[in-house]
Amino acid sequence: MAEVYVAGVGMTKFGRSSEALTELFCTAAERALESSPVEVEAIYIGVMNPEEFTGESNIASQITDALGMTGVPALRVETASSAGAAAVLAAFHAVASGYYRNVLVLGGEKMTHLSTSATTRILAEVIDREERRSGATMPALAAMIAETYRKRYRLSRSRFERILCAVAMKNHRNGAANPHAQFQSPITEKAYFSSKLVATPLRLYDCSPITDGAAAVVLTAQRTDVLISGIGHGTGPLSLRERDTFTSFRATEIAAARAYRIAGISPREIDFAEVHDAFTPFEIITTEDLGLFPAGKGWRAVEDGTTAVEGALPINPSGGLKSRGHPVGASGVAQVVEAVWRLRGMSEPKLKREARRALTQSTGGLGTNNFVTILERADRPRRGPNAAPVPAPAVRHAPQSKSKKDTTPPEPSDEGKIETFTILYVTPDGFLPPLALALVRDQRGALLMAQGEDISHLKIGREVFLRRLEGVYYFTVKSHLKKVREGLRRLLRRLPSLARTGRHGQGRKKAV
Amino acid sequence: MAEVYVAGVGMTKFGRSSEALTELFCTAAERALESSPVEVEAIYIGVMNPEEFTGESNIASQITDALGMTGVPALRVETASSAGAAAVLAAFHAVASGYYRNVLVLGGEKMTHLSTSATTRILAEVIDREERRSGATMPALAAMIAETYRKRYRLSRSRFERILCAVAMKNHRNGAANPHAQFQSPITEKAYFSSKLVATPLRLYDCSPITDGAAAVVLTAQRTDVLISGIGHGTGPLSLRERDTFTSFRATEIAAARAYRIAGISPREIDFAEVHDAFTPFEIITTEDLGLFPAGKGWRAVEDGTTAVEGALPINPSGGLKSRGHPVGASGVAQVVEAVWRLRGMSEPKLKREARRALTQSTGGLGTNNFVTILERADRPRRGPNAAPVPAPAVRHAPQSKSKKDTTPPEPSDEGKIETFTILYVTPDGFLPPLALALVRDQRGALLMAQGEDISHLKIGREVFLRRLEGVYYFTVKSHLKKVREGLRRLLRRLPSLARTGRHGQGRKKAV
Repeated sequence: MAEVYVAGVGMTKFGRSSEALTELFCTAAERALESSPVEVEAIYIGVMNPEEFTGESNIASQITDALGMTGVPALRVETASSAGAAAVLAAFHAVASGYYRNVLVLGGEKMTHLSTSATTRILAEVIDREERRSGATMPALAAMIAETYRKRYRLSRSRFERILCAVAMKNHRNGAANPHAQFQSPITEKAYFSSKLVATPLRLYDCSPITDGAAAVVLTAQRTDVLISGIGHGTGPLSLRERDTFTSFRATEIAAARAYRIAGISPREIDFAEVHDAFTPFEIITTEDLGLFPAGKGWRAVEDGTTAVEGALPINPSGGLKSRGHPVGASGVAQVVEAVWRLRGMSEPKLKREARRALTQSTGGLGTNNFVTILERADRPRRGPNAAPVPAPAVRHAPQSKSKKDTTPPEPSDEGKIETFTILYVTPDGFLPPLALALVRDQRGALLMAQGEDISHLKIGREVFLRRLEGVYYFTVKSHLKKVREGLRRLLRRLPSLARTGRHGQGRKKAV
Repeated sequence: MAEVYVAGVGMTKFGRSSEALTELFCTAAERALESSPVEVEAIYIGVMNPEEFTGESNIASQITDALGMTGVPALRVETASSAGAAAVLAAFHAVASGYYRNVLVLGGEKMTHLSTSATTRILAEVIDREERRSGATMPALAAMIAETYRKRYRLSRSRFERILCAVAMKNHRNGAANPHAQFQSPITEKAYFSSKLVATPLRLYDCSPITDGAAAVVLTAQRTDVLISGIGHGTGPLSLRERDTFTSFRATEIAAARAYRIAGISPREIDFAEVHDAFTPFEIITTEDLGLFPAGKGWRAVEDGTTAVEGALPINPSGGLKSRGHPVGASGVAQVVEAVWRLRGMSEPKLKREARRALTQSTGGLGTNNFVTILERADRPRRGPNAAPVPAPAVRHAPQSKSKKDTTPPEPSDEGKIETFTILYVTPDGFLPPLALALVRDQRGALLMAQGEDISHLKIGREVFLRRLEGVYYFTVKSHLKKVREGLRRLLRRLPSLARTGRHGQGRKKAV
């Protein structure tokens, strides 16, 4: 495999823009090309859903024309919200194969012109259909994952909330120094805790914003100061119901193992990382999946300042998706741009130790299609492969299709246990807030996404009754039901007298 | 660049299917994997617009799950109707780089569940926005290209119609022997000429059908009996207005030049080709762009039977898109599947000379994003690079963006000349048939897409008056206007008497 280097990089300011999607792409492309002393032979474009966001089809040809580069091969790559990183990988292969010497990689998305509910609906299409039917949105599933993490690592609710707040505050503080970030001022703890609940425990400040923007990177076979020394890609189950764990993303583990192996390094040789913090808890989980911190210890690295810019292992020194913004298709490319700038010493604030090796991680959908890229200064001596490479996680790939299986949802057993839950305060169209959602493990061991008939008494491990109505599962907390029953019993005990009063009343009426 | 071979291939029957999109993908994948003695490490998926055709997002993860291959890296590639071929190219790079040894390439689309008008609308989104605003559809633009070809090569209308009919008859005859084809019976000349006009001169039988289907190919670094010896990709202007020629597709020329150069062969070493005959005239133009026939001679190769299965250079022996069907994202992969089957001697009817080297060509949009792949038997001795390789066409790639230019359409000059035209009998929603459309070159030399105020007197080169109303250009043929004027003049000449009669009448009325 030929070595692949980074020539120029560039991006637009992220935020709300009046420019059209193709214009955003052109601005980013021009900035990257200006600083690239090479002639690009092909264009790779990461964009998630221009079909529905802006009504654009045939986007690769549109962009090529708009750039005045008609004739140059151009294709679009898509893996939901990691589309930009997917374009980097495809372009990497094209250069590493020797087929092209220089290629332009673009990532972009135009989203802010739509209403929040329309954007949320389009973004939610990446979720499993059945989970969507229950009212699940991206924040809802992220919240359920967060709740599992909190419970598994025995963090009190208030401590966990303070940790999530610390991630948000750190990233907003970092973004304040980033001229391309959508939000350029720090946030206070007070502002965090007074921001509205989206899906417990996630508040508005735990979620990356809706953003317009584009980013560009020129990859080249010609030696430059920055080398892509490792790159990896993996997938994970689409639905939460089919996962064996909620506290890590297998797709990231698979991608990371490959990237480290190719780079010949271990996670401890990474100087800083730009990771996909679409939701604050995902930053924590991702740093664990990447092996940057042990499983269940990522929260502590936030708490003790390890991941701050002045810490030992800065995470998202650019502000991350949280503060830089998240034009979905752009983010995977923007992370590479930010990493290159920082490796070149062009970013503020400076890190404590000189940045020689960076990692970028991008997540597609709910952790279902993820990428890891390792970039390093090429003008410093390179060490050989590390003695103890990260073992590759086992990948199931039995070529046996599940597509023909009976897709009618099974009748649930009558009872089950809450595996994780959230209360959704920002609901998709057609669902009234607050909406309780839980993943319930039924008595046969299957996981079901179910709507709560009530939002009270929710807790991981709590027993519930289940029923199915028109393809949607509903649950009622047993203890809650018990209380209702007790209430009814008390009422029944009082019934004879009530009944007497009733009859008496009727009698009186008749007497009148 | 490492050599890339084809292991197993497979496809679904093309046509109207009750299976869901992911099921179609799984069926094709299983067939290719069954015949592949390798373990695939990644999945590349070509699909054009599942977002709008079936409401699917995050399709790569969906398919990976459905295949029971969760964990395996999977990404989607898209270049409009050549998406399948784009996936082949991206996968080729991944294997040629040495990054993966074995990858599964899938192409598919699900279209028949929608109404024809909905499908036509989605397909038309690949066209330039301004041309769409005038009522242009894919068949309309294809028809305008056909008309230019006919005129340029001085073919009479009736001869040209017989040539197009010959393409359709040939491909339907070939498809009749293909068990995977949507249409499996030959058509008669009578049936062709009684099929309805879609956009003059194109009839229903000149257009590929709306189809469901999927196809799969396993690419491998391991030596097999079929080698991908060359592959190329190019783009062309999105809009007709910006083209310097209508009688060839620059995107195909660019792609072909690269593919021949890598394979080290000239076009005359191709034994048969599967080309993108979405419209019958495109088969002819494409065989010229590929250098299989000289420019302006492709029609003669149809007329004299050269391109028939028993001819010297069979084109679309599988039946092509025309008869096999055109599930857009699938076609680029299906062509490779058909080529491999034929190279392996598994296809009927047999060709006259032994097939040793095949070419597949796929078109994205209106010839804007095209691919060429050359496949050859690897178990026969390979010749070295050809003495006279095809020169690469010049590609403009000045990195100067046109995106910031004023996008308000200019006021046309008052007059212009018809460059090409069609009368559309199947119109998009909101346009009443018959609808005349023409590309008009105005006095400043700019090309404009304009609607005719009338459908009569249309001819290439005819002078027209132009006007613009609410962003849409309208034209009136001068001679036609002259006739109207003459008619008015005649009327005016009769006016005095009419006026007298009028006054007389009034006078009488007053007298009463």
